[in-house]
Parts: sequence; structure tokens; C-alpha cells
Amino acid sequence: MMDWQDYLDREQPRFVAELLDFVAIPSVSAKPENIADVRRAADWVAGRLAAAGAEHAEVLPTAGHPCVLADWLHAGADRPTVLIYGHFDVQPAEPFDLWTSPPFDPEIRDGRVWGRGASDDKGGMLIPILAVEAMLKTRGALPVNVKFFFEGQEEIGSPDLPPFVAEHAGRLQADMIFSADGLQWAPGQPQIVEALKGLVSLEITVKGPRSDQHSGMVGGGIANPALALAHILAGLRHEDGLIAVEGFYDDVIALDDRTRAAIARVPYADADLLAETGAPAVWGEPGHTTAERIFARPTLDVNGLTSGWQGAGTKTVLPAVASAKITCRLVAAQSPERVFDAIRAHVARHCPPGVTAEVTRNPGRADPFLVPAGHNASAAAAEVLTDLYGVAPYRTRVGGSIPVMTTLLDTLGVHAVMFGFSHGDENLHAPDEFFRLEEFRRGQSAYGRLLERLAR
Amino acid sequence: MMDWQDYLDREQPRFVAELLDFVAIPSVSAKPENIADVRRAADWVAGRLAAAGAEHAEVLPTAGHPCVLADWLHAGADRPTVLIYGHFDVQPAEPFDLWTSPPFDPEIRDGRVWGRGASDDKGGMLIPILAVEAMLKTRGALPVNVKFFFEGQEEIGSPDLPPFVAEHAGRLQADMIFSADGLQWAPGQPQIVEALKGLVSLEITVKGPRSDQHSGMVGGGIANPALALAHILAGLRHEDGLIAVEGFYDDVIALDDRTRAAIARVPYADADLLAETGAPAVWGEPGHTTAERIFARPTLDVNGLTSGWQGAGTKTVLPAVASAKITCRLVAAQSPERVFDAIRAHVARHCPPGVTAEVTRNPGRADPFLVPAGHNASAAAAEVLTDLYGVAPYRTRVGGSIPVMTTLLDTLGVHAVMFGFSHGDENLHAPDEFFRLEEFRRGQSAYGRLLERLAR
Repeated sequence: MMDWQDYLDREQPRFVAELLDFVAIPSVSAKPENIADVRRAADWVAGRLAAAGAEHAEVLPTAGHPCVLADWLHAGADRPTVLIYGHFDVQPAEPFDLWTSPPFDPEIRDGRVWGRGASDDKGGMLIPILAVEAMLKTRGALPVNVKFFFEGQEEIGSPDLPPFVAEHAGRLQADMIFSADGLQWAPGQPQIVEALKGLVSLEITVKGPRSDQHSGMVGGGIANPALALAHILAGLRHEDGLIAVEGFYDDVIALDDRTRAAIARVPYADADLLAETGAPAVWGEPGHTTAERIFARPTLDVNGLTSGWQGAGTKTVLPAVASAKITCRLVAAQSPERVFDAIRAHVARHCPPGVTAEVTRNPGRADPFLVPAGHNASAAAAEVLTDLYGVAPYRTRVGGSIPVMTTLLDTLGVHAVMFGFSHGDENLHAPDEFFRLEEFRRGQSAYGRLLERLAR
Repeated sequence: MMDWQDYLDREQPRFVAELLDFVAIPSVSAKPENIADVRRAADWVAGRLAAAGAEHAEVLPTAGHPCVLADWLHAGADRPTVLIYGHFDVQPAEPFDLWTSPPFDPEIRDGRVWGRGASDDKGGMLIPILAVEAMLKTRGALPVNVKFFFEGQEEIGSPDLPPFVAEHAGRLQADMIFSADGLQWAPGQPQIVEALKGLVSLEITVKGPRSDQHSGMVGGGIANPALALAHILAGLRHEDGLIAVEGFYDDVIALDDRTRAAIARVPYADADLLAETGAPAVWGEPGHTTAERIFARPTLDVNGLTSGWQGAGTKTVLPAVASAKITCRLVAAQSPERVFDAIRAHVARHCPPGVTAEVTRNPGRADPFLVPAGHNASAAAAEVLTDLYGVAPYRTRVGGSIPVMTTLLDTLGVHAVMFGFSHGDENLHAPDEFFRLEEFRRGQSAYGRLLERLAR
């Protein structure tokens, strides 16, 4: 009987070609014009699961983008049941002109697959499917019972997942949950992620005149909504990074000495952050290191601004409307609802004269998420990573949000463990996203070993 | 011999149809994709001048959009020579979805022509051509010598006009200049405009990381350019309307009691401004009435904001770039160059940490413009307006800028007088621009009478 690792080696060219096919589907969950593409990606995933030997592979509807479930449950009642999570939707690819190769016409350069979603999370979620295929095609069986749960709305905050998970709780129930949407610290250095931040998304819309006005006819007579929006935004967060919204920090648990020490052990160099991003300087809330701020302190970021004339040259207009998209990353024990209410109340109190300001929520929310110390699935994952990389994983926290982790915890009572093989330098959510083929292959070994380890 | 007024009455249906044809040309000077349309409008104007009986009608090149010249110079050396100015380019029409009928497929409703440029300035600049046609077709002559000067770049600040006017100074030289790009106070109430504001146009671009970043991966670690831009903009002008740029007001001549009294005599009601614009309140620099601010005080307006994700829903991005378009309206004796330098120095001094900020000029500039009290052409215009409307014109100032007025003054030594028949409620520079057909007809009489009056 061929070893499952040899099978992975032999089939790798096919797997890479399949990843390219998968990335080529523009399954952008945020854009209405891509609804059919997200559905197409779901169909692709269900077909791929069935081809791997998983059973009951099917696309299931939600109020929004669909989910895909499958399972293989013949390891016996004495073996644990493991749920593996991932997502097949991707971020929008704009601005297209900053991509070296087209985001949805992926290509391989320098041992990497370049394209939107290659790293987040199409490469990642394909990995456990391939590991399971290798075991089933060589041994005909898996060492544990496995369930797959893939969704198509992670990049918009999984708004329809809570009712879906509740409805299918029986079919999703598991002893442990692993998320294939996750990062290792660096090539050669694994990590166990102890926490994810929560998320709240909102939009501030400032209105003045009923339509755009001639700045010469009325300028100086009525307020400018774009200027008023600037005053509102400047009032939300000081130039030094401290968030100025009254009540914003009320529910934040301050970092204790143990946590600060654990973060300090992670080699997180400001210089690396600057090299990776090209930013001219680090910046953020006073009183915390850069690593503390990114891992474990809440944020408020302006994601977009829109107002008036955005074309070439000059248009002497006093715009009718100005708007800003904002997301806050939250930490324990903040709630998206309480933070939204605090921002809305702050804007209402501080709206400049001569305009009206409205604060509305955008879809997507996540509670902050923290894996308890000593968690069993987390310990197993750490052991496999140590074997595979030859070095113990760092214990880190991540500024990103995966709302479904909270949903799964709330509904199934199980803390998911991040077990993914992307890296932070792979331009996730940015132009020129890529995924390392070396990690694609290593992740397949890792999932196989993890399933073996969990059978002991 | 038919009276020229009867000719105007008889031909009015044709003139209106011609105005519709003219408005249908999308001669948007700000947009590169409309360069050929601006040229097409120039050709249309030259053809229309020739059809009216003007001589030497021709399209002449500049470094940008072309100009159109024509003349009729057979009134005799004892008669004055009058230069009539107007422009055939128009503002961009975006946002298209706010128009009741398409901006470049004009239609007549309620005695008005609806379409981009109907009022500013295609309706206006067609008026003197039609008056001249009526006189030439009925009498075979004009009472004075007339030159026409129409340009195609007024809406972008006439950047190429200074060298053009210098080059063609001999052909443009005149005893008096009248601008067909202008407003009356209200239907039934004429005005003589004593001043125009100057203009400087600029753009502030704030940069952080080299590409858009995942707000969860780096948020809290590096500065957000959109937030930093908000801080910069908020620092340029206080919430109460006072401009905070150091040195901005240095060259402003304070309003004396005579000027404030003249402005106070003009019935400029805040309630009317609010009804016309739909703004919730008046707003602006403390210590001045609304009319003073709009007529005679400098402004700083944000014309547009662009940053990050502007599509539907949420994109959790920390944007690489944020930019704002700004125009300032200037009053005597401010200079566009000195104000630009003051803003650039202010932004350099107050750039928030963690980003870089660049201030660049956009094309277009105008010095503030003031017609001297007792000016002869201004007195003639006032007399014709009083006859025609049965009421003496108000003496007002206008917040808008017509850079070519300054250019003509500097090069030809002649103060142009505004003699146009648009109104401030006609949605100039906004969706649903319109022009009143009643004023279109009245303007034709006004230009005919003006030429007769100037022959005395």
C-alpha cells in the first residue's frame, strides 16, 4: 500500500493545477455582481470533496451565500470527531491596476501562486481536503471521524452563519474544531494563535445640501459635508492613535503582566512591519508596544472615504454628501453592539454645525475570541507543528476576525483552533496576494499528521 | 425692413432647437475622454457665428481645448469696438442618476431647457450671437464693432488662456468687454456684478503603506492615511468656518462700511439660500453676514474625497492612500500663489505622524476681480437692464471665478462687465441644470439694446 505522504508527492502537480482553477473563480462575497461566482466556487468545493472520497458533500443555502458540508464518519465511535472549517469566498481585488498578474487569472512565479484568495483562504481550505484524499486513496480510511464545513461569506463577516450553524448543529457537532483559515508565524516558524479580535463595521454619512452645489455660488454660506466628515473622523481618534470615542475602552480587559511577557517573547520587530508594508513609521495607541497593539489592543480604522468629485482635475463643487467606512477590531470583553452604540452616540454629540450625520452598521460582526490555556486540540496542534517545523510554535494573537469561530463556540460549545499555513506577508486583502507552494505541501502533511495524532 | 426684435420673435423656435443641439454635445473640459466633444462644440460655435453673419469665424488652438474667434468690424472707426466673451465647455455631469432627464439629451419642460451647460454657459453664450444675427439679417449692419471670443476651458480654470490672449491681443483688443457668462439677481430683478472671487485649486495626498493592507494584520501598528487626511482637513478650517491656515487671511482687504452697507441693501435671505440648496443651516466664518461671506469673503471648500474601499458593504482594508481635492475662492488682494504656499506650508507643519502628505496644485487659477466704481461699460449695462426689467439693478459681488476676466484685464487693460441672463437657482454645476427660455429671449433683446446704447 502506498504511503499517504508518497501519494501527496505524486499528486502535487495536479493539486497545484486544481488550486489555480479554484483561484480563477472570482468568488467576491462583498459584490452583488459576483453572487453566481460564489455559488460556482461552492459547487467546485462540493465536487472536490466528493472526488477526495468525502461523503454527503453538498451545497446548502443560507439567506446569503451558501455553505458546503461533507463528512467521513467511519473511524468508529471510540475515535474523536473533528470538524474542519474554511472559506471559499475572497476579498474584492480592486485596485486591479496594482496587480502584477490578473487577480483571477492566477499564475505561478517563484514557487508561489499569485491571485486573489490564493492565500486567504482557497489554498488553505484545499489543504485538508487533499490530506484526506491521500489517506482515503491509500488506506481507504481516516484515523478519526472528519466533518468539513466551508462557507462563502467570511470576507463580509459571515452574517448568515449563526442561523445556519444553529439549524445544522447536529450535523456540525464535533469534539474538536480546526480552522484551515490561519497563519503560521513565518516560513520555518510555526505559531499557535490564542486569540482573534472581534469586529464591528459601520459607515458615517454626512449630508448638507440636497445636491452638489457650485462652490462659488454657495461656498462660505453653507457647511461643506466633506469638511464636516473630516472633523468627525478626526474626533474619533487622536493623531497619536488613542481612540477618542467616549466609552470605547470601557469593556477592554487591560493586558496583564503574563500576557505582556508572552507577547514580548514573540520577535515582532517594528523594522519588519515597516519593510513588509512600506509604511514610513509605526504608529498607534500610546503606552503599548507595536506587537501589543496589533495582537491585543482594539483599533478603529477608516477603510474608505467617498465624497464629491473624484475624477481628474478640478470640479468646483460643494458636495451634498460625504461618507466614511469604518471598522473597529475588538478585544475581550468588548461587544460589537456596545462599541457601535458608543460611536453613534459620540458622532451625535460631536456633529459639526450645518450638516447632519448618520451612523449605520454594515453587515458583519464578530465577538473577540480567546482559546483557553491548555486546550486539548491546541496542544495536539502544537505537537504536530513542533514535529514538522523542528521548533516550538510561538503563542500569539491575531488582529484579524473570524466571526464563525465565535458562532461555533456559542452554538457547539467548542473552541476552534487555527491550523492554517498562510503567512502575513502574502498580501492578504491587498493587490498581489500569493501563497507559498512549499507551505501548501507542508500543510497537507500537517493535516495528515494531525488526524493521526488525534487518533491516539 | 423687419425690426430685429420681430426677427428674434419669429426665429425663436429655431433658436431653441439650436440650443438643444448645442447642449447635446458633452463638452466636459475636465475629462480627457471628452476632448473631441469640446472640439466638436468649438466647431459648432464657429459654424453658428458664420451663419449669424459674423466674419472670420474660426477655431484656434491652445495648448489645451481650443478657442473660437469671430468679428464684425464695419460700424466705422468712430464707433466703439465691443468684445463679447463666453464659454462652450461644461462641468462634468456626474452623478448621472440624480438627473430627471439625461444631461446630454436635453429636453424642454415648464418653459425651461434641462441639460448640462444649458445655463452655464451654452444658453448664455448663444444669446449675443442670436442678437447679432437678428441685426445683421434685418439691417445688414451692427451699431458698433463687435468681436466674439469663446473658450472651451472655463470650467477647468482656463489654464491655457493667458498665452492665447497674449498671442492674439491685437485681434482681441476692444474698448469694452462684456461677458455673456453671468447671472441676473432673480427673474425680474437685474444686477450689476462688481466683483468676482479668485480661485486656487489643489489636492492633498496622504500616503502610508505602499499598498492597501489588511486592517486586522496591521491595524494598530501603522497609521491610517484616511484618518490622517481627516486630521489635516480638520486642521485647515475650524468647525465654525474660520479658516485656520496660517497666513491665509494676510492679504485680505477687510470690508469697509460702504461695502458692507451696499451688500446689506441686497435682499439676500438665509431662508432663500436654505430653500434653494436644501442645506439644514447657514454656516461660515464668524463675524460676517451670509451675503458678505458668499459675496466678499474668501472660502476653503473640500470638493472631493477618495480613499480605500468605496463599493458596497465592508472591506477591512487599511488604505495606502487618501486624497482630497480643495478649492479656495479668493478676494482682493489675495493671490492664488501665496494662498497655495500658505496651505502647503501649513500641511507640512501639521502632517500627523506615521504618514507623508503632499500638496499639489491642480490646473486653473484666477486672481480676484473688481470692476471700478463708475466704469463706463458697467453704466451702459445698468441703463439697459433698468429699461428692460423696469427696475434698477442691485450692485452685487459673486463668489464664482472667471479666470479669463483677469487675463483680459492684465493683457488688454479692459475690465469686463458681466452681462449674462442665468440665475443662481438653475443648478449650475449640479444635476438637473436648466435655463429659462424667458431669459434666453430677454437676453437677446438686452444684447441688441446694449449694442444700440453703446453706439450713442
